[in-house]
Amino acid sequence: MISICVFGAGRIGQLHSANIAQNPRAQLAMVVDVNAEAASELANKYGALAETDPEKALENSEIDAVVIGVPTNLHVDLIIAAARQGKAVFCEKPIDLDIGRVDSCLAEMANLGVPFGVGFNRRFDPTIQKLKAAIDSGDIGQVEILSITSRDPAPPPIEYVLSSGGYFRDSTIHDLDLARWLLGEEPVEVSAFGSHLVDPAIREAGDFDTAVTSLRTESGKLCMINNSRRAVYGFDQRVEAFGSNGMLQTANEMESGLLRWTGTESAAQDRLKLFFLERYAESFKVELDDFLDAVEGGHQPSVTGEDGRQALILADAAQKSAETGTIIRPLERLGGTL
Amino acid sequence: MISICVFGAGRIGQLHSANIAQNPRAQLAMVVDVNAEAASELANKYGALAETDPEKALENSEIDAVVIGVPTNLHVDLIIAAARQGKAVFCEKPIDLDIGRVDSCLAEMANLGVPFGVGFNRRFDPTIQKLKAAIDSGDIGQVEILSITSRDPAPPPIEYVLSSGGYFRDSTIHDLDLARWLLGEEPVEVSAFGSHLVDPAIREAGDFDTAVTSLRTESGKLCMINNSRRAVYGFDQRVEAFGSNGMLQTANEMESGLLRWTGTESAAQDRLKLFFLERYAESFKVELDDFLDAVEGGHQPSVTGEDGRQALILADAAQKSAETGTIIRPLERLGGTL
Amino acid sequence: MISICVFGAGRIGQLHSANIAQNPRAQLAMVVDVNAEAASELANKYGALAETDPEKALENSEIDAVVIGVPTNLHVDLIIAAARQGKAVFCEKPIDLDIGRVDSCLAEMANLGVPFGVGFNRRFDPTIQKLKAAIDSGDIGQVEILSITSRDPAPPPIEYVLSSGGYFRDSTIHDLDLARWLLGEEPVEVSAFGSHLVDPAIREAGDFDTAVTSLRTESGKLCMINNSRRAVYGFDQRVEAFGSNGMLQTANEMESGLLRWTGTESAAQDRLKLFFLERYAESFKVELDDFLDAVEGGHQPSVTGEDGRQALILADAAQKSAETGTIIRPLERLGGTL
Amino acid sequence: MISICVFGAGRIGQLHSANIAQNPRAQLAMVVDVNAEAASELANKYGALAETDPEKALENSEIDAVVIGVPTNLHVDLIIAAARQGKAVFCEKPIDLDIGRVDSCLAEMANLGVPFGVGFNRRFDPTIQKLKAAIDSGDIGQVEILSITSRDPAPPPIEYVLSSGGYFRDSTIHDLDLARWLLGEEPVEVSAFGSHLVDPAIREAGDFDTAVTSLRTESGKLCMINNSRRAVYGFDQRVEAFGSNGMLQTANEMESGLLRWTGTESAAQDRLKLFFLERYAESFKVELDDFLDAVEGGHQPSVTGEDGRQALILADAAQKSAETGTIIRPLERLGGTL
Repeated sequence: MISICVFGAGRIGQLHSANIAQNPRAQLAMVVDVNAEAASELANKYGALAETDPEKALENSEIDAVVIGVPTNLHVDLIIAAARQGKAVFCEKPIDLDIGRVDSCLAEMANLGVPFGVGFNRRFDPTIQKLKAAIDSGDIGQVEILSITSRDPAPPPIEYVLSSGGYFRDSTIHDLDLARWLLGEEPVEVSAFGSHLVDPAIREAGDFDTAVTSLRTESGKLCMINNSRRAVYGFDQRVEAFGSNGMLQTANEMESGLLRWTGTESAAQDRLKLFFLERYAESFKVELDDFLDAVEGGHQPSVTGEDGRQALILADAAQKSAETGTIIRPLERLGGTL
Repeated sequence: MISICVFGAGRIGQLHSANIAQNPRAQLAMVVDVNAEAASELANKYGALAETDPEKALENSEIDAVVIGVPTNLHVDLIIAAARQGKAVFCEKPIDLDIGRVDSCLAEMANLGVPFGVGFNRRFDPTIQKLKAAIDSGDIGQVEILSITSRDPAPPPIEYVLSSGGYFRDSTIHDLDLARWLLGEEPVEVSAFGSHLVDPAIREAGDFDTAVTSLRTESGKLCMINNSRRAVYGFDQRVEAFGSNGMLQTANEMESGLLRWTGTESAAQDRLKLFFLERYAESFKVELDDFLDAVEGGHQPSVTGEDGRQALILADAAQKSAETGTIIRPLERLGGTL
Repeated sequence: MISICVFGAGRIGQLHSANIAQNPRAQLAMVVDVNAEAASELANKYGALAETDPEKALENSEIDAVVIGVPTNLHVDLIIAAARQGKAVFCEKPIDLDIGRVDSCLAEMANLGVPFGVGFNRRFDPTIQKLKAAIDSGDIGQVEILSITSRDPAPPPIEYVLSSGGYFRDSTIHDLDLARWLLGEEPVEVSAFGSHLVDPAIREAGDFDTAVTSLRTESGKLCMINNSRRAVYGFDQRVEAFGSNGMLQTANEMESGLLRWTGTESAAQDRLKLFFLERYAESFKVELDDFLDAVEGGHQPSVTGEDGRQALILADAAQKSAETGTIIRPLERLGGTL
Repeated sequence: MISICVFGAGRIGQLHSANIAQNPRAQLAMVVDVNAEAASELANKYGALAETDPEKALENSEIDAVVIGVPTNLHVDLIIAAARQGKAVFCEKPIDLDIGRVDSCLAEMANLGVPFGVGFNRRFDPTIQKLKAAIDSGDIGQVEILSITSRDPAPPPIEYVLSSGGYFRDSTIHDLDLARWLLGEEPVEVSAFGSHLVDPAIREAGDFDTAVTSLRTESGKLCMINNSRRAVYGFDQRVEAFGSNGMLQTANEMESGLLRWTGTESAAQDRLKLFFLERYAESFKVELDDFLDAVEGGHQPSVTGEDGRQALILADAAQKSAETGTIIRPLERLGGTL
C-alpha cells in the first residue's frame, strides 16, 4: 500500500484525494493546506491526517509519495523539498511558468532520482490511450497531419487568467503535449495566431482567449491546434490523426446518449429527405437498368411477378392478423404450398 | 436502343420517363394517358409521341417494352394486353389488390414468356443493394433478426387511402418484399397490430395509419416492421439486419450534411460533458495508476518532468509567435539542440 | 446515514455493496451469504460485518434497510421476513417467477407498508431517464411506436438458463418494464415469436434464445421488442420512441470514442464518395443555375473575378509563407490596400 | 433559353455540357476543342455543333454565353475575347496563376461589363450553402474559428502537378475562397507549412503534397486549413465553423449509408460496452439513490412491487404467445381487470 500526502485541498486536490481513496494500491495518509479548515474537511472525509505545515508533512517518514495540487508558483520548491526527503513526486502541470526555473528543477530532480510525474492527464484518457495505441500499431501508417480541437465551455474568472501565465502556457500546453506524444517527433517550427473574441476582461488582462497554433516537425509532420475559452455547447475535446493509411478520430463525450429528431428548423441535423421521389431517386434509375438488362437478355428482371404475388400474400396475412387479432400462417391458408 | 412506351403521365410516369430519357440504352418512344393534354405535355418534353388509346399504342411494332404507371385496377388487363403483343412489361407495384387476379395474371404471363418486372424499387436503392451484398457475402453470418422502419412524412389524401387496398397492401407490402428478399426464406407466420393514431379520416375510411408486423420463417428467422403514415422529421427508411456474426444498418439520408451544435435545450443531441472534471474523470484515475506503477517499480512515470519542460518550450514559442507575428523555431532559440 | 445489509455476496451483491460504500447517505453495515468466506471477503473490503444466518441479520436493530441479491427462489421469503422486521426492502428482479407467489407477496407487503423497491435498473440509466423526461415534457407529442433492442453479448451458462424461468421472464422482462413505463399505458395485447438460433443447448433446455415481441395498448400505442442472447459486437441496448411530433433515440455506449477511417473493405462505414465529380456533382448544377441567373438578369454571378483574384492573393501568400518560413501579410505586399 | 458554347471537351467540359443539356433554361449550342474528334463526340451526344476554331465560335451571334474549361494558361485571352464579343463568361478556376495577369484581366472585364463568373464550385454545394445560410442567419453568433479539411483521395499525375502552379494555388485556393466567403472578412495574416510526405515525384517537382495554412482577419477571426494529396478512405471534405453561440459542421458524404457492426478489431468504431455491469454501472448508482430517497422519505421507491408484477404478467403472456402461436390478451386471462 502506497501512502500518499496530497498538497492542496482545492478542486484538484479533492479530485486526486478521491481517486487515491478508491484505489486499492494507495492510501490517502495526509492532506496539507495552509487553510487548516480546508485541509481538515478533506482529510476527515477519507480518514486522513490534516496538516498546515508542508515541512512537517515532508518529514513524516510514513509517507511514500506526494501529489502536488497547489498554485503553480509554489510547485518547484515543493517538488525539490519532497524529493530531498526521498518522496516520489507527482505534480500538476505546469512545473513552472519560467523555462529557466523548470530547467534548474529538472537538473536537481535528475540528481535526486525519485519517480517524478507531471499531470498531463489527457494522455491517460481511455479514448486517447486507444488512439495512441492505434497509431503505434500502424493502423493509419505514418501520421502526417494531427488536428486538435480544445475549447473550454466558459472562460475562467479573470483572477485565474491573471496568474495563468497566458493562454498558451495555461491551456494550449495540454495540446502541445499531446502533439509531441502523438506525432512521435519534436516540433521544430511553431506559428500561432491569438485573438481576443470572447471576453474584453481577458483582453484588458493582456491575454488571448482564442488561438490557432501550427507545428512542423523535422520530417515534415504537421499539426494544427485550435483553442477557445468559450464553447456554449460544452467542453469540446477532439483529436484527429491523419496518416498515410487512414484517419483516426476521437469523438466528443456527451452528457447522455439521447438523440432528438423533430421537424423544427433548429434541429441539430438537417431534415431527412422528404419522400420517396427524393429518397429513392437513384433506385428508380437502377431499377430501370435492371429491366433493360432483362429486355436485352431476354430473361426475367430481378423482381418478378411471383415476388409481387408473395408480397401480397404476406400483406393479406398482416391485414387479416390486424383485423382478427390472431397470428396468421399464410401457407396454411393457401393449402400448405408456397 | 430499347424503345419504351410509358402508360400513365402522372407523377410516377413522369419519373420513369425522365429516367428513360437519360438512359443511354433506352428511348422514350411514346406516352399514353387518357388525359390527352397530360400525355402531350410529358411526351413533348422528351420528343416522344403522345397517345390516348392504349390499344393503338400496343399495336405499334416499334415499341419493345412498356412501363405501366396507371391506377392499380387497370394493371392486370394492361400487363396481359402488352405481353400478348410481345412487349416486355414493367409494372408498378402492386400487380393487383386481389390475390386471385394476381394468380391468374401470373399464370397467363408464364405462358406468354416476356420479361415481366414489378416495381419494388427499394431493392434497387444503392445502400440496400450494398446491404444485400454484405448479407450474401456472409459479413454477419446467418441473418437472425431483421428490423425495418418505414414511416412516411405525411398521410396521403383520403381519396388515395380509399383506393389503396389498405395500409398493409399499399405500404407495408414494400417492407414485406424487402423482408422476403433479405431473409432469404419465406415467412410462415405473420402477426400484425394496426392502430389509428394519425388521421381520424383514415379511421373513418376503415384503414390503419400505424402498424407493427412480425414475421417468422420456417427456420426461425424473425422480422419486425414498423410503419406510420406520419413522421414529422421526414421519410424515415431504415433496415437493420442482425446476424450470428454482427449487424448491418442502413442510415437515413439527410437533405444535407449540416450539423448544428448549440447550447439550446432543443438540440438534437445532448450537450457535451461540461468540463474537464466530467470529461477526464477516468483519465485522472488512470494517471494515478501510472504514478503508482512508477512508485512501486522505482522508475519514472509515463509523463516526466522533461515532458513538462518540452511542452512549456512549445507554449513559449506559440506565445512569442502570436505576439511577434513571426514563425518561431524553438530549437534555434535554445541553441539548436533538443 | 442509512444502514444497509446486503444479502448475497455474488456479482450483483458486490456491485450494490460498492455503490452503498461510495454513497454519502448510506453505510454498508452487513453482508449476508451462506458462503461464510464470500460474506467475509466482501464485508471486509468495506469494513462491514459478515453473517451467514439471515434471521440473525434481520434481528439486528441497527439495520435500516436490506438489499436482496440472492437466487430468485429465495426472494419472496426474504422480502417478507425483512419487512416484518420493519426493514425497507430493495430486491433484485424478478420478485418471483410465479405470478401467484408474486400476488401473495405484494398483498402482504401492502399490509406491512415498508418501502419496497424492485431492481429494474434500466429505468435509472441517465440516458433513459432523459428519454423519459423528454417524452413526459411532450418533445415528441404522443408516443405512438416504441422500438426496443436488447441483445446480450453472449449466452449465459446453461445452468443459468435452466433456472431463469425462460427467456421472456428472465430477459425480455426488462424491456417489458421499460415499455409499460415509457408508453404510459398498460399493454392489452401481446404477440411473440421465439426462436432457437444461438445455442443448441438452450434449445435442449426448452428455452428460446432469439425473440421478437409486439405489444398494443388500449388506445392503440404499439411496441416492438427484439432480443438475442448473442451480439458479437457487444451489449446492444437501444430504445426508440416515435411520436406524433418526432422521434427520440438512445445511442449505444461505446468502450471508447475512437473512430477509424481506412481504405479497407471491412470498414464499419462505407467509403467516402471518391472525388470531386461525385462529391460536388450537385454543386456544379447549382453553379450553372447561378450563372444563368446572371446572364438572364444582366448582373454579375455570385462568384466574381474579384473572388478569383483574392483567393489567388491568399494562395500566393500561403505559398510564400511555406517557402520562406515567415508569416505573410498580403495587404502589405499589395501596398496596404485591399 | 440561353445558348451556351463550351470551350474544352475534357473532363470538366463534359461535366458542364451534361449539366447545360439537362437544365431547362439553357441549351448546349456548341463545343469547341482543338481536338476535332473530342469536340465532335461531345457535341453529338447533346445535338450541339462542334468547332475547333475559338474565333469562329465567338463570332457566332446565336451564342449568348461561354463556359471555359480549357488549360489555365489560355483562360485570360479567351475570357477577354469572349467578353469583347458581348458574351457572358463563366471560367473555371483559377483565372490565371499570375496575379499581374489576373489584375489586368479584371480591369478590362470591368470595362466590358458582361456577366463574368469563376468556378469555385464548392460554394454551391447544397450542404455548404446551408452552412453559409446558417452562419448568415446568426445560428452560431459571430464566427470565431473556421476549420477546413480538404484532402484528395490520391495524388494527380505528375504532369498535372508540374503545370498546376503549386499545391496552394491549385488546391488550397478552393479552401481560401471558402474561408473568405464564410468568415465574411478578408484575411490579413497568412502562415503556412508545406511538407512532402505523399509522393517523392511531387517533391522532385518542387511542390508540396501536404500542408496546413492559418489565416487571421483584421478583427481577429481565425481559420485553419489542412490539405493532403492522398486520403485512402476517399475525398475528405469538411468545414467546421465555430462561433460565439455554437458550432456548425458539414459531414462527409458516403458512397452509401451502410453501417457495419462486427466483433472484429478493425471495426471503424470501438466495440460497444461489453455487458450490463459496464453499460448500466451508472444506473445502479441512481437506483440506489432512489431507494435511499424512499427510505428517508418513508414512501415507496420509483419502481414498485406492482411494477415487478405487471412486467411478469407481460412476460408470461409473451412466453405463452411464443409457445402457442396466438396473440395473448393478458387482461382477459386475469379476468379483465388490471
